[in-house]
Amino acid sequence: DFAAALQEVKPAFGAVIESLESYRLQGMIDYGPRYQHLLSSCRTLVQQVQSSENTPLVTCLLEGPGGTGKTALAATLAIESGFPFVKIVSAESMVGYSEQSKSSQIAKVFDDAYKSPLSVIVLDDIERLLEYVAIGPRFSNAVLQTLLVLLKKQPPAGRKLFVVGTSSLGLVMQDMELAAAFNVALHVPRLTQPEQRSVLQQLGAFAGPDLDIAVAELPDLEVPIKRLLLLLDLARQGQAEDERATSLARWSQVLRDLAVT
Amino acid sequence: DFAAALQEVKPAFGAVIESLESYRLQGMIDYGPRYQHLLSSCRTLVQQVQSSENTPLVTCLLEGPGGTGKTALAATLAIESGFPFVKIVSAESMVGYSEQSKSSQIAKVFDDAYKSPLSVIVLDDIERLLEYVAIGPRFSNAVLQTLLVLLKKQPPAGRKLFVVGTSSLGLVMQDMELAAAFNVALHVPRLTQPEQRSVLQQLGAFAGPDLDIAVAELPDLEVPIKRLLLLLDLARQGQAEDERATSLARWSQVLRDLAVT
Amino acid sequence: DFAAALQEVKPAFGAVIESLESYRLQGMIDYGPRYQHLLSSCRTLVQQVQSSENTPLVTCLLEGPGGTGKTALAATLAIESGFPFVKIVSAESMVGYSEQSKSSQIAKVFDDAYKSPLSVIVLDDIERLLEYVAIGPRFSNAVLQTLLVLLKKQPPAGRKLFVVGTSSLGLVMQDMELAAAFNVALHVPRLTQPEQRSVLQQLGAFAGPDLDIAVAELPDLEVPIKRLLLLLDLARQGQAEDERATSLARWSQVLRDLAVT
Amino acid sequence: DFAAALQEVKPAFGAVIESLESYRLQGMIDYGPRYQHLLSSCRTLVQQVQSSENTPLVTCLLEGPGGTGKTALAATLAIESGFPFVKIVSAESMVGYSEQSKSSQIAKVFDDAYKSPLSVIVLDDIERLLEYVAIGPRFSNAVLQTLLVLLKKQPPAGRKLFVVGTSSLGLVMQDMELAAAFNVALHVPRLTQPEQRSVLQQLGAFAGPDLDIAVAELPDLEVPIKRLLLLLDLARQGQAEDERATSLARWSQVLRDLAVT
Amino acid sequence: DFAAALQEVKPAFGAVIESLESYRLQGMIDYGPRYQHLLSSCRTLVQQVQSSENTPLVTCLLEGPGGTGKTALAATLAIESGFPFVKIVSAESMVGYSEQSKSSQIAKVFDDAYKSPLSVIVLDDIERLLEYVAIGPRFSNAVLQTLLVLLKKQPPAGRKLFVVGTSSLGLVMQDMELAAAFNVALHVPRLTQPEQRSVLQQLGAFAGPDLDIAVAELPDLEVPIKRLLLLLDLARQGQAEDERATSLARWSQVLRDLAVT
Amino acid sequence: DFAAALQEVKPAFGAVIESLESYRLQGMIDYGPRYQHLLSSCRTLVQQVQSSENTPLVTCLLEGPGGTGKTALAATLAIESGFPFVKIVSAESMVGYSEQSKSSQIAKVFDDAYKSPLSVIVLDDIERLLEYVAIGPRFSNAVLQTLLVLLKKQPPAGRKLFVVGTSSLGLVMQDMELAAAFNVALHVPRLTQPEQRSVLQQLGAFAGPDLDIAVAELPDLEVPIKRLLLLLDLARQGQAEDERATSLARWSQVLRDLAVT
Ligand SMILES: Nc1ncnc2c1ncn2[C@@H]1O[C@H](COP(=O)(O)OP(=O)(O)OP(=O)(O)O)[C@@H](O)[C@H]1O
Ligand SMILES: Nc1ncnc2c1ncn2[C@@H]1O[C@H](COP(=O)(O)OP(=O)(O)OP(=O)(O)O)[C@@H](O)[C@H]1O
Ligand SMILES: Nc1ncnc2c1ncn2[C@@H]1O[C@H](COP(=O)(O)OP(=O)(O)OP(=O)(O)O)[C@@H](O)[C@H]1O
Ligand SMILES: Nc1ncnc2c1ncn2[C@@H]1O[C@H](COP(=O)(O)OP(=O)(O)OP(=O)(O)O)[C@@H](O)[C@H]1O
Ligand SMILES: Nc1ncnc2c1ncn2[C@@H]1O[C@H](COP(=O)(O)OP(=O)(O)OP(=O)(O)O)[C@@H](O)[C@H]1O
Ligand SMILES: Nc1ncnc2c1ncn2[C@@H]1O[C@H](COP(=O)(O)OP(=O)(O)OP(=O)(O)O)[C@@H](O)[C@H]1O
Ligand SMILES: [Mg+2]
Ligand SMILES: [Mg+2]
Ligand SMILES: [Mg+2]
Ligand SMILES: [Mg+2]
Ligand SMILES: [Mg+2]
Ligand SMILES: [Mg+2]
Repeated sequence: DFAAALQEVKPAFGAVIESLESYRLQGMIDYGPRYQHLLSSCRTLVQQVQSSENTPLVTCLLEGPGGTGKTALAATLAIESGFPFVKIVSAESMVGYSEQSKSSQIAKVFDDAYKSPLSVIVLDDIERLLEYVAIGPRFSNAVLQTLLVLLKKQPPAGRKLFVVGTSSLGLVMQDMELAAAFNVALHVPRLTQPEQRSVLQQLGAFAGPDLDIAVAELPDLEVPIKRLLLLLDLARQGQAEDERATSLARWSQVLRDLAVT
Repeated sequence: DFAAALQEVKPAFGAVIESLESYRLQGMIDYGPRYQHLLSSCRTLVQQVQSSENTPLVTCLLEGPGGTGKTALAATLAIESGFPFVKIVSAESMVGYSEQSKSSQIAKVFDDAYKSPLSVIVLDDIERLLEYVAIGPRFSNAVLQTLLVLLKKQPPAGRKLFVVGTSSLGLVMQDMELAAAFNVALHVPRLTQPEQRSVLQQLGAFAGPDLDIAVAELPDLEVPIKRLLLLLDLARQGQAEDERATSLARWSQVLRDLAVT
Repeated sequence: DFAAALQEVKPAFGAVIESLESYRLQGMIDYGPRYQHLLSSCRTLVQQVQSSENTPLVTCLLEGPGGTGKTALAATLAIESGFPFVKIVSAESMVGYSEQSKSSQIAKVFDDAYKSPLSVIVLDDIERLLEYVAIGPRFSNAVLQTLLVLLKKQPPAGRKLFVVGTSSLGLVMQDMELAAAFNVALHVPRLTQPEQRSVLQQLGAFAGPDLDIAVAELPDLEVPIKRLLLLLDLARQGQAEDERATSLARWSQVLRDLAVT
Repeated sequence: DFAAALQEVKPAFGAVIESLESYRLQGMIDYGPRYQHLLSSCRTLVQQVQSSENTPLVTCLLEGPGGTGKTALAATLAIESGFPFVKIVSAESMVGYSEQSKSSQIAKVFDDAYKSPLSVIVLDDIERLLEYVAIGPRFSNAVLQTLLVLLKKQPPAGRKLFVVGTSSLGLVMQDMELAAAFNVALHVPRLTQPEQRSVLQQLGAFAGPDLDIAVAELPDLEVPIKRLLLLLDLARQGQAEDERATSLARWSQVLRDLAVT
Repeated sequence: DFAAALQEVKPAFGAVIESLESYRLQGMIDYGPRYQHLLSSCRTLVQQVQSSENTPLVTCLLEGPGGTGKTALAATLAIESGFPFVKIVSAESMVGYSEQSKSSQIAKVFDDAYKSPLSVIVLDDIERLLEYVAIGPRFSNAVLQTLLVLLKKQPPAGRKLFVVGTSSLGLVMQDMELAAAFNVALHVPRLTQPEQRSVLQQLGAFAGPDLDIAVAELPDLEVPIKRLLLLLDLARQGQAEDERATSLARWSQVLRDLAVT
Repeated sequence: DFAAALQEVKPAFGAVIESLESYRLQGMIDYGPRYQHLLSSCRTLVQQVQSSENTPLVTCLLEGPGGTGKTALAATLAIESGFPFVKIVSAESMVGYSEQSKSSQIAKVFDDAYKSPLSVIVLDDIERLLEYVAIGPRFSNAVLQTLLVLLKKQPPAGRKLFVVGTSSLGLVMQDMELAAAFNVALHVPRLTQPEQRSVLQQLGAFAGPDLDIAVAELPDLEVPIKRLLLLLDLARQGQAEDERATSLARWSQVLRDLAVT
């Protein structure tokens, strides 16, 4: 009853994509070769699930510092895939649940995916799913073991599944054997200065000559894309909508006062 | 049903502000440039929530030693904001509750905030919400994970939220990834000697020439504002109401006998 | 309903003072300047609660080695205060209770105190309330957090509260942030040799010339007052009631055989 | 009631073998002497159970790095044995179960085996059965103790049992005394370069001259067979079915982009 | 209702003493000055409870290596005291009870004692009451806290109590603050060679000249009295009842074969 | 009701001995002086229980590496004793039970033994009864404390009990104070080369001249008897029943392929 399964998962589709869009509300800016390369590697994997009979399960981990765009990239892959079953597993919808019930909700998502011929599951912010904290360290072993098993379990005959996970704690993922449980692990980097320049330019943030000065003023050499976008937004505060370029003075003040984290 | 939501949160408003006032019963004394700068950075953030569409969630951590005025400052921001939903989350109202029920009370406050177009939530004394103790260390991971998730969760479309947290354990907040979960972390300092002088002068505590001697007698170079106010109060004990200046003798005795902590 | 509250707490008053007396059954011996100073510092604090409007909550920790008279001093302050609500929180009345129920009993005592215009709460032997043991270490975090919150919580408008705690583990109190949670921490010391002499003399323990020899024979330079009183009692065993002075021989034997701890 | 027992276990037989086949979907490639030797050692053990009266219980642990083919080999032994009772114990079918219920499910499998004259039990991925994680470390002691006891418990008179376990954590198995609880422990290795060459050649992956270059390009000297098969599959993506040999260019790109783990 | 209380505790008296006798079935051998001194110190304490009004609670810890006679000595004190309430608290009667129920059984014994004018409580083998094990270490904090509180709690007015505890883990008792919770701690030693000689002689174990040789053959310089008695018993095995002296040959064999522990 | 007790325990007797036989299915081979000495020491202890009135409880621990024959020896002692109550306490019959229920089952066995005039209890593989694992380490303290108490508890008047325990973790038994809780601890060793030769010869394993070569080929100098018997059995695989001597070639192959553990 392949048809029945399709029936079952299709209706929710529109809504799901819409909600996935909310994970990349500030769009996807092509900041250069490193981004293009990352995106194309991911697309190869999605393609592999669909086209080969030998690899019904392909799994990929996106790891990198906070705010580098892991979740936005994972959401993008899910949306682009066009697969009939697409689901994001996120701690946001499981606040306050017991670890047992988190585990079984996760298992449920995989069971649902097994009913669709082609599926994508996003495991977002795996450290939050695991309730990980470095002091101790503490985490839910129940959720961890559930993930370790599900990441290796072959879908039933004729069903295919792509799993993409995100995490900002690459080393922890390794210590937990989670990194090794994925077929592939890809690093999502902070932006270098040329990449920062590219982003600010595409957003028309500074008048031509100011652009290089603005980049040079950032306190760290490398910046997560999410943080760069926030700093720009704070600098633009009070600025008239039609006034495009931001003043360097305002930029400097924001960096001095608030760029603490 | 925007209107309905407004309806829902408005009635409690008066009461809430009144109770927030109780967190700064001894007023807010402007002790100099460091205070002014701190206050204006905070106001920029509150303004940002209100004015930009790109940043519906702005979060700020106030950390600094005990008694430096973190809670009073957070309360001040909440009162000044004029936002229709304002709530303080404090361990005082949750004594003896289980960690699960603390977590769900906190989640409930966020859910309520999501119903108002503009909200402020004060997370006061985060280490107490977490039931943290350095021996072990021990803390409620359930409450921690709830905070980590809620501090990153975007409000629903059209709703905006400002979260301000206070903590006297900056390093612990970092180890727990809580500091990084806030957009901005600001340090609230102990008073330096010029700042102490400014406070004592504004309160008319000592006759002109005595003022510098009084400041010099304090055993530590830097003093939290709350402690300075307590010491002055102890020194004024038994003093007639109309008699403004305190004697240096009484001041010295209080410092010798009681300034242990 | 201020009157009602008074009504509620008054009746138990007589009984409470009587039971407090049982914590200083061997009286309070003035062993010299250090004792007088300690007592007067404490009295200043009690006075402060009563007289100032700015400090409705004053808290004081008495810490010092076992048997130095902390509990007897705390009981003395409570009795002297003349406050209408006086309560001792002690582990003795909570043997075998769960940590949750200990926490809520303690919170109940504070709630009761908030109904009286002026109250004293004695938190006796805080390490026992916390079920602390150095191996591990282990303790009840639930009770600890309850104390940390209650020690900072302002009484309702118009109510005033003095809290005095006792502990023989000063460093542990610091590690747990409990010492810092009190406004003031005072040290209760072991008796020096002149102080020992003063106590033995006031009790007429030895005939004049023997007194210095008796003090010199004590194995440790410093002795807790409770232990000194026990040793004297053991030495007096079998002595006729009217025979006041103890023999040095008997004193030496008791010290040799039993002064192990 | 030997006959009854047979009756009881037979019907499930066909289905069981079918499901065992799914653990070696990509077949068993004879990659050289090391593989032949491993296989023949295993067969000696299976033979021993069947032929000797002195050894009604023979147990064997297959340990080696991830993806080296342990599970496929264990499944092969079970299928080949022709024993009337054959069962695989795997974490996949116990996701989310409590450790108590995992223990009793495992004990149940052994009890069932004791009803058949000849049985094979595969304990697959023992670290997952134990819910092991190196951080801590944590694991289910209940499951561990169950395994330690069952691995030493003699079957009832007249019944014979072969147990084969798999694990990629050889040292952990030793620390837990699990390795010593097996009669024999055999190492399943990663493929050396000649072995890799043999596998790629048998699969006709590269045109003759390209074969040695392809092997030389693999980043690690030794590769688990499962990984080699995945890399080849990714390299063949988009390739026409009848087109046998893969291009070295495509091979290099796959290795560069995705051979991270 | 003093009389009623007496009524209540009296009936069990005979039985209790009988059961206490079972803790010194091999009698009390006076092995020399160290034993006499120990016994008289203990008797002073028992006397103190009875005769002074200032010390209604006297507590004493007997600590020393395994088998040195601590329990036998404690039982002897209890029997000799002639106090109307006498009770031994031992782990033997609480096998398999939860720590909560152990705590409340112990508290119950103290409550019962408070009803009698004069009582003795023996806390036997405190480490077993605490379920202590050095690996970890682990122990019941509930039982420990119960003991710590009860050892300091004054009996009600007019009631007097002597508590004697035994333990073979002196250092552990100190780490747990249990040693300090007793008024006095006395060490019960292993037998020195002259003491061993005295015991063997009193039991007529060896013919005159053999006695010194027998003592010299013991592998350790110091021996617990319980072990010495066991070794003698093993050496006497098979010996006719009337034949008093043991042969050195048999003695040597027993020491060689069995004196391992 | 001595007679009644006998009645109660007798019926199970035959069955019990039969089941004890299953612990030494491969018989007891006298491998030389060390074995004879061990056996006679044990017999002295059994004799002591029976013959002396002073030692109603005698306890003995057999410790040594895995497979050295500890359980077989303990079973032998129990069978030989001829005591009316004989019971083996083994983890095999308690798989999956909670630690509480294990504790009470063990206590029940002792209670049953106390009803018989003469009893033997075998505590087999104490580390398994304790659910011990070195990682952590973890174990059931409830079971441990139960054993520590029962190993010291005197049987009721007129009843006598011999307890023999086995363990392959001598050091752990010491750390847990279990070794000291037994009266005697005896070491059960691996076989030396002359002892191996003796065993192989008695079993007619190799033709005369081959015997020394076969012994020399064993990879370790010392071998547990259980392992030696298994290796011989594997080498004899496929050999005709009447063909007594094994070929050295087959022996070498088995050692090379399988003697890993
Ligand atoms: N090329 C890009 N890649 C990823 N995100 C981008 C890109 N360009 C713009 N963005 C925007 O940057 C933001 C990245 O934030 P995102 O939450 O995905 O980061 P993250 O790495 O998941 O952060 P965290 O570590 O907190 O989970 C999104 O708002 C997204 O719309
Ligand atoms: N400029 C100021 N900033 C903050 N507080 C001030 C200032 N001037 C006066 N105060 C008074 O100082 C006190 C500061 O106490 P507050 O409880 O806010 O400190 P805190 O840092 O939150 O202490 P804790 O670390 O114990 O939580 C308040 O009573 C407040 O009214
Ligand atoms: N000046 C004094 N200060 C305190 N106690 C005194 C003094 N003079 C006599 N005493 C007597 O000494 C005893 C002190 O014992 P108390 O229990 O108060 O000591 P503690 O420090 O609380 O001991 P612990 O550390 O065991 O709790 C009381 O019996 C009290 O009556
Ligand atoms: N000679 C071989 N031995 C084992 N597996 C082989 C062999 N030849 C091909 N294969 C294939 O290689 C794969 C080996 O994967 P398998 O899951 O058995 O590895 P594993 O060691 O159990 O991995 P893991 O450590 O993840 O449990 C299977 O798909 C199997 O069909
Ligand atoms: N002078 C003596 N003091 C104590 N016990 C004696 C003495 N003379 C003979 N005994 C006998 O020695 C034995 C001492 O054993 P007991 O159980 O009291 O030792 P223990 O120190 O409590 O041992 P454990 O450390 O195991 O609890 C008793 O059987 C007692 O009858
Ligand atoms: N002299 C002997 N002593 C002990 N066992 C012998 C002897 N001769 C032959 N055996 C046989 O050797 C085997 C010893 O195995 P046993 O299970 O008793 O060892 P173990 O030390 O208890 O092992 P484990 O450490 O795994 O519990 C038994 O099958 C027994 O029949
Ligand atoms: Mg993310
Ligand atoms: Mg505060
Ligand atoms: Mg006290
Ligand atoms: Mg496997
Ligand atoms: Mg004892
Ligand atoms: Mg054994």
